[in-house]
Amino acid sequence: MSTPGRDTTLAELPIRDDLRGKSPYGAPQLPVSVVLNTNENPHPPSQALVDDIAEAVRDCAGALHRYPDRDAVALRTDLADYLGEITGVELTYQNLWAANGSNEILQQVLQAFGGPGRSALGFTPSYSMHPIISDGTQTTWLDAKRAADFSLDVEYALGEITARAPDVVFVTSPNNPTGGSITIDDLRRVLEAAPGIVIVDEAYGEFSDQPSAVTLIDEYPAKLIVSRTMSKAFAFAGGRLGYLAAAPAMIDALQLVRLPYHLSVLTQAAARVALRHSTETLAGVAAIVAERRRVVAALTGMGYDVVPSDANFILFGDFADAPASWQHYLDHGVLIRDVGIAHRLRATIGLPAENDVFLDVSRNLAATDRKALA
Amino acid sequence: MSTPGRDTTLAELPIRDDLRGKSPYGAPQLPVSVVLNTNENPHPPSQALVDDIAEAVRDCAGALHRYPDRDAVALRTDLADYLGEITGVELTYQNLWAANGSNEILQQVLQAFGGPGRSALGFTPSYSMHPIISDGTQTTWLDAKRAADFSLDVEYALGEITARAPDVVFVTSPNNPTGGSITIDDLRRVLEAAPGIVIVDEAYGEFSDQPSAVTLIDEYPAKLIVSRTMSKAFAFAGGRLGYLAAAPAMIDALQLVRLPYHLSVLTQAAARVALRHSTETLAGVAAIVAERRRVVAALTGMGYDVVPSDANFILFGDFADAPASWQHYLDHGVLIRDVGIAHRLRATIGLPAENDVFLDVSRNLAATDRKALA
Repeated sequence: MSTPGRDTTLAELPIRDDLRGKSPYGAPQLPVSVVLNTNENPHPPSQALVDDIAEAVRDCAGALHRYPDRDAVALRTDLADYLGEITGVELTYQNLWAANGSNEILQQVLQAFGGPGRSALGFTPSYSMHPIISDGTQTTWLDAKRAADFSLDVEYALGEITARAPDVVFVTSPNNPTGGSITIDDLRRVLEAAPGIVIVDEAYGEFSDQPSAVTLIDEYPAKLIVSRTMSKAFAFAGGRLGYLAAAPAMIDALQLVRLPYHLSVLTQAAARVALRHSTETLAGVAAIVAERRRVVAALTGMGYDVVPSDANFILFGDFADAPASWQHYLDHGVLIRDVGIAHRLRATIGLPAENDVFLDVSRNLAATDRKALA
Repeated sequence: MSTPGRDTTLAELPIRDDLRGKSPYGAPQLPVSVVLNTNENPHPPSQALVDDIAEAVRDCAGALHRYPDRDAVALRTDLADYLGEITGVELTYQNLWAANGSNEILQQVLQAFGGPGRSALGFTPSYSMHPIISDGTQTTWLDAKRAADFSLDVEYALGEITARAPDVVFVTSPNNPTGGSITIDDLRRVLEAAPGIVIVDEAYGEFSDQPSAVTLIDEYPAKLIVSRTMSKAFAFAGGRLGYLAAAPAMIDALQLVRLPYHLSVLTQAAARVALRHSTETLAGVAAIVAERRRVVAALTGMGYDVVPSDANFILFGDFADAPASWQHYLDHGVLIRDVGIAHRLRATIGLPAENDVFLDVSRNLAATDRKALA
């Protein structure tokens, strides 16, 4: 089989200078039995949910020759109902916007409020797509730091925001890859200090007991955007549905930059079915939180240091050589994540049996290789 | 029901200055019986295709808690097989890339090869998303013109390309909204003259007898990108699947800017099913082309001037007042498109019965209101 143009290399192409030498983002997709590296929900959809999705697709597939509802009003209405129920804030579809994963949500936000000549500030380590999407939209990334214990030092944060005056501030709560949340009081102080937009990335919100930033939309309508996803708690990573809540004018702004018909008929239909099954899905979230507590206690008992987590993953260590320990887990059939933090690795909370394997390898690593722990 | 933040207006938000005063792109989505305004394929999916999509979704929905194959290799392989078959060019998945509609394809291409400080040139009137996506990626849009008969005057085009040295050149073939194609010989001259990337937008390729630009990839691997879509001939507008063919290094470049996991499990599965049914679907294309000939002959007989079309739509006139005539069609239950070309309107070729209604209204308009025709 021929491959036309196969001898041409990337170096020969006129790509933008700022892309030269970069690598595509993404965790390794490896065929391993215990996959705990991308913070997926380990509970597969129930048979009832699978059947309902298949039937919903059958019902709408007869109109696949037509473009979807460009404004996805029915889906946004269902998202408003769901988010209103879990946050206690009454919302309408005018407060909601949806896209193909929260990455597309964040890209649209930066296309509207960031871009050339503008800046976005985040507190790292945090979700690594924030600086990448800033780069992709030509928004200048301003790197600020989390404290040594990975919490957000609010006095420091206010100083950074005041001094650097970013057009957009990212606050991830619970923070990925470290697990901690910000309180509503601290978030209010960030909102008061920020000169422009504040994006609170609540991708892991359902795993946390903290109130959602959605409670602050009415107070900061011209500043606050709360991004969420169905990839984590909703066990819908494969369905690609991210969303945000904000004042209606924010959604008007995003409609100026969104690609028309960005959400397929199938995505809209399947996400609506998943939302109808939210009670059953969120029961799984409670089980994951219980497993997280068990895993944290067991690792702590083995001598590991575990960062307190409100999410479905944990950051732990200290490893003398985190990449070598990552490989040790992989060699024993467990794929976790080296997020580039020295002496630390991140592991997703899986099913009980998966967590048992992870804990066995962790125990083995701590017991047989004293050098593994720093 | 309350809507938090409802009193805040778009004018109060810190959106980019270049977005102020703009309106969201999109044709009206109106509840009309004869919808001929967005160049959809009027043939609904067969029951067999609907059933196969539903079953494929059932088969993959059990893994919706996991992220999709980020590289969509199976889908790209199927696209390579399909495109290879219809163009006669052997292709592998390394030549193919897919996204949520060709709009996302074009956005990714401009993120990699356009952007701030770079320019894209197109020959208007053409697909109106080309300048919009250029704006959205901060690529400077350079407007060049088609000839008075809406064909591409190649001598003029070469002059514009040489004088303005754009980083990206758009060539739409068949051209939307006018319908004509460029020959391979003329396209080769454009490729020779272009200093950077040439995107040949073949969204309507299956409706044309012209050879595809895919035949030139091996000759111009560092310049040529051929974008295509399943929205038109494939009757899959609701499924949102655009793709491109190019040298493998071009796809390497796009992977530097694509959002990870941009294509859902459902999109990948449903598109693969639609590709398996391509023989049946493309039989419908032949029927549409036959109807186009019938509609063109009838309109011509009524005194309308119709631009020769290789696509599933026609641009016709001359109307004294195109917006008024557009409203006349709508008042009689036929939604067509005012694309902003003076004295002209665009109509999609529909099912025979829909075309009959469209022709009846056209006849009525020509006979009862002599002012309608210029």
